[in-house]
Amino acid sequence: MTTTPVRALTPVLDTGRTTLGPALRDAVRSHLGEQMSRIAGYHFGWADADGLPTGSWGGKMVRPGLALLSARAAGAPAEDGLPAALAVELVHNFSLVHDDIMDGDETRRGRPTAWTVFGVPDAVLAGDAMATAATSVLLEAPGPGARAATLSLMTATQRMIDGQTADVGFERRDDVTLAECLRMAGDKTGALLGCACSLGAELVGGEQVLVENLRAFGEHIGLAFQLVDDLLGIWGDTERAGKRVGADLWARKKSLPVVAALNAPGSEELRALYLGAEPLTESDVRQVTALVERAGGRDWAQDEAARQITAAEECLAAAPLPGGVRAEFLEIAGFILGRQL
Amino acid sequence: MTTTPVRALTPVLDTGRTTLGPALRDAVRSHLGEQMSRIAGYHFGWADADGLPTGSWGGKMVRPGLALLSARAAGAPAEDGLPAALAVELVHNFSLVHDDIMDGDETRRGRPTAWTVFGVPDAVLAGDAMATAATSVLLEAPGPGARAATLSLMTATQRMIDGQTADVGFERRDDVTLAECLRMAGDKTGALLGCACSLGAELVGGEQVLVENLRAFGEHIGLAFQLVDDLLGIWGDTERAGKRVGADLWARKKSLPVVAALNAPGSEELRALYLGAEPLTESDVRQVTALVERAGGRDWAQDEAARQITAAEECLAAAPLPGGVRAEFLEIAGFILGRQL
Repeated sequence: MTTTPVRALTPVLDTGRTTLGPALRDAVRSHLGEQMSRIAGYHFGWADADGLPTGSWGGKMVRPGLALLSARAAGAPAEDGLPAALAVELVHNFSLVHDDIMDGDETRRGRPTAWTVFGVPDAVLAGDAMATAATSVLLEAPGPGARAATLSLMTATQRMIDGQTADVGFERRDDVTLAECLRMAGDKTGALLGCACSLGAELVGGEQVLVENLRAFGEHIGLAFQLVDDLLGIWGDTERAGKRVGADLWARKKSLPVVAALNAPGSEELRALYLGAEPLTESDVRQVTALVERAGGRDWAQDEAARQITAAEECLAAAPLPGGVRAEFLEIAGFILGRQL
Repeated sequence: MTTTPVRALTPVLDTGRTTLGPALRDAVRSHLGEQMSRIAGYHFGWADADGLPTGSWGGKMVRPGLALLSARAAGAPAEDGLPAALAVELVHNFSLVHDDIMDGDETRRGRPTAWTVFGVPDAVLAGDAMATAATSVLLEAPGPGARAATLSLMTATQRMIDGQTADVGFERRDDVTLAECLRMAGDKTGALLGCACSLGAELVGGEQVLVENLRAFGEHIGLAFQLVDDLLGIWGDTERAGKRVGADLWARKKSLPVVAALNAPGSEELRALYLGAEPLTESDVRQVTALVERAGGRDWAQDEAARQITAAEECLAAAPLPGGVRAEFLEIAGFILGRQL
């Protein structure tokens, strides 16, 4: 993970970096106890396991950057959206810490995950503490919309949890429909991104039509991101995908292109191979890749991603906001779809 | 767990039972997704693992009963405190679901714990979902103090997390001071009980002096409960303690009477035995029990519990509230200290 492409692509995120990094550290320090602060600091990357500074500023901050922009969309200064930005980033990272435990993932962003360093109990608690702090930070905000914004954040969090639950549950099922899979991705990825895009506006008391259009914009972008992510997981190159290509197939993941293919006519061979219990061989994975493509999974996912991007652009066009802010939203969307969420 | 002593001891809790059980089920159903509702329903006890009704109404509801009473303390009808009651019960149970995972506990209230039935991933998510729902339920309340009450609930939750963190951390340490141990117990048990006693009043816009005194009352009762619980864990009978007597000592738990004894003069033999690495024998545990008593751990804990109860009564006396409500608070406190929290 380098910072250079961030700077090059999106000045708005670069601004976010200088504002958000220190503010996030302050929020963690003032809301979490000592041990929980240490684990959060390690997870965010600004401290090592002993709590010593690493010099890192804590990630790409895409979601909080969107939240700041969303305050500007409602005509307020970016800094008025800061509590929304911090809250969204805390919720996102609470979910990452817990997901890593559930999935047994041992590395994230090239470092050992929190639970491998501090143990499962403290990592569960650190996620809980970050989620709790998110509510406090947002609700303490002086903005007129603090209560409404916090309720929106809880709704998005609940959907994110449902999406993760569905994703976990899909592993045990062989009858997942495309509609279920799209809903899961919308809940798991779309809901919080939609929240990030609208929360700053809601906090500063922006009009409902603005808030709703920004939320829908973010949800469509989130779904497009997930489609692109799933495509790259099968047909991308490893460096760009950020994970081993084919890993999703090896794990028999019910990703969007695969579920589209499994539900297409003539998918008997694919179903027999992918839904079986035998460990897949390398040649099986190559075969699955070909069968998903032949059944139209790749084309469908590419088309659907394009449809979601168009829908996102329409929502943004319908949102009453300054032209410069619209351009910045589109710039960040491009950045996200370039696989940097 | 039988319901008869509840009915006999505290009519207020019995009232709570008929109101709170159905309201809690409604809150879970309307805020949690399908699978998360099922796990929560299983954990609360009103459904079995397949989601079929058990006929149970979901526990003693001590904390939500206190929250309803706290609304009445501020002159409002009990039902105005309902969102506070539900939120406190959701937070308490989110912590139980997560604690059972952390501690590896396989039974609770005589039934297999949620993680043993649904797996760790879904149980982590169910705890997250219950915590998220707690905030939504409270913040949606029409009461004038919804925002302040939600912030108080987050503060209590954060303290509860810190208390659990400290408790987990004590296992690895042999230099835990009595002050640290008291603070841990205050955070882990006192904070949420103090919140339960004051949250209804805060939600309905009760005076600050009332809210603060009720909170302090609950914190002192929580600490007294923990002291009694620790005493019973060493010198009680198994039925009353609700767990195997001596289990805390076998596990070398840094409970309050033990930490008092470890820090007393002349505790060398106790320290050598209890802080060693060798597994304890039955005769060791008998010896530890005698040494903790000889070092004054039992007397100190009994005296401290009495001090906490006196302090609680003083806080209640200082709270401006109707005499009948005061009597009910004392009745529930007696019920709690009779080991029914």
